[in-house]
Amino acid sequence: MQFATVRCADGRPTAAVSWGAGWHRLPAPDLSAYLRTCLDRPVDELAGEELDGAELVLPLPTPAKVVCCGLNYGDHIREVGRPVPAHPTLFAKYADTLTGPSDVVSLPRGVDVDWEAELAVVVGRDLRGAGKDEAAAGIWGYTVANDVSVRDWQNRTLQWFQGKAWDRTTPVGPVVVSADEIDPCAGVEVLTRVDGVERQRGNTETLVFDVADLVAYTSTFTRLRPGDLVLTGTPGGVGMGMTPPLFLRDGQLLETEIPGIGVLRNPIALTTT
Amino acid sequence: MQFATVRCADGRPTAAVSWGAGWHRLPAPDLSAYLRTCLDRPVDELAGEELDGAELVLPLPTPAKVVCCGLNYGDHIREVGRPVPAHPTLFAKYADTLTGPSDVVSLPRGVDVDWEAELAVVVGRDLRGAGKDEAAAGIWGYTVANDVSVRDWQNRTLQWFQGKAWDRTTPVGPVVVSADEIDPCAGVEVLTRVDGVERQRGNTETLVFDVADLVAYTSTFTRLRPGDLVLTGTPGGVGMGMTPPLFLRDGQLLETEIPGIGVLRNPIALTTT
Repeated sequence: MQFATVRCADGRPTAAVSWGAGWHRLPAPDLSAYLRTCLDRPVDELAGEELDGAELVLPLPTPAKVVCCGLNYGDHIREVGRPVPAHPTLFAKYADTLTGPSDVVSLPRGVDVDWEAELAVVVGRDLRGAGKDEAAAGIWGYTVANDVSVRDWQNRTLQWFQGKAWDRTTPVGPVVVSADEIDPCAGVEVLTRVDGVERQRGNTETLVFDVADLVAYTSTFTRLRPGDLVLTGTPGGVGMGMTPPLFLRDGQLLETEIPGIGVLRNPIALTTT
Repeated sequence: MQFATVRCADGRPTAAVSWGAGWHRLPAPDLSAYLRTCLDRPVDELAGEELDGAELVLPLPTPAKVVCCGLNYGDHIREVGRPVPAHPTLFAKYADTLTGPSDVVSLPRGVDVDWEAELAVVVGRDLRGAGKDEAAAGIWGYTVANDVSVRDWQNRTLQWFQGKAWDRTTPVGPVVVSADEIDPCAGVEVLTRVDGVERQRGNTETLVFDVADLVAYTSTFTRLRPGDLVLTGTPGGVGMGMTPPLFLRDGQLLETEIPGIGVLRNPIALTTT
């Protein structure tokens, strides 16, 4: 089953479920609100009228927590010259960091902007101190993200945060696919294309820490709640790893794809001062 | 002027202002809500009845952003063996990481728990791309924080986040003092005591990046809003820097003081499994 936040013909957003051919209204203004308030009732009781001219927007606009894992695919770990880690390397983003599946990603002229296609986990239960089975059962769905990174800021200091948390630079979407339809342990492909040229193609079966590992580990120290996101890391092929490094240019189109979920198509604008 | 979130005799929390001898009710359930909704009206119009038996609790329970600076005092930079940085080293916490001025800080048995007394800036305006003057004018007040750190988790990977974001481990309070009453550039002392033994005594006049620098720099990449917190780093004297390292033990009392603001008194419980 597919879920989304859509902008209706009247301009208002609503949570929606794909039911047959079209999107049907759910009783919440977006999927973040839906996950916080509606999970105790079956979706077929909640689904309303079919929506005309629905446009897919950022599905989860207000997660309380966006936890990201770095260094989680062997080929990416090798290209940045690190050892395979014994523990997940985690950092945080804010809800403000996220943007929609077709939104322009706007950053200042002159910064080094790189791509990082990622599978994102959508949490569906309250989880603290969860074991792996409980964590797996607490995964509500999956979506696509691109952890677009400002490399020069990321590498200014020991902590990556300031290169990872620029407002409205991490596209997410276009839909959330329920967890029963995707099995990242069996393998889903994760791709980036820049102006149509493939730059990343990885497979989640090669994750060092799988989706349940990441959710369980994070829940050791902080409570995860419905609508929170866990980004699972990026495969090899980032621009920073090339010789010479290759970064995004103003006007390029960044496409991020996970077959079975969908494609993010984000124009890059490097125009502000 | 001093502000706080207090628990009234009836058990309910409310934002409050210190007005003469006692605390007076403000029309919001806590200071986070007060800062989001009430800053357009003068506090003397808003202050209500005096509150009996008011107990000070976490003043800012729901900041959207808690941005922390590491490596910002020369003596602390030396004790951890780092060069003086050219840019602020920033990382994030969540609202869930915070706890009240007299709450028990509870962590699992066996982890390495260290203290980091800090001056915390409370933002009072919408700030994005702010210059230093605008950032300075956007500081609403100051409070005390202790960036209690789980050192073994902090040092498991390149990113400190997992040692810094354990739920309810960063005490904040006891009050917020309005920015007109404190001048960190002129110098305020920042102290930690453990079971009455002084462990840290620094002065904000020695900050590498001052409060307005930190707010302006952060606003380059993310919008700060009323109620957000910026923690300004810790002075020398952390347990990790001692030979041999010294960490907090179950049952110890952690006191964090900034004269002119107040003292946090947090019992340490290392009891969960």
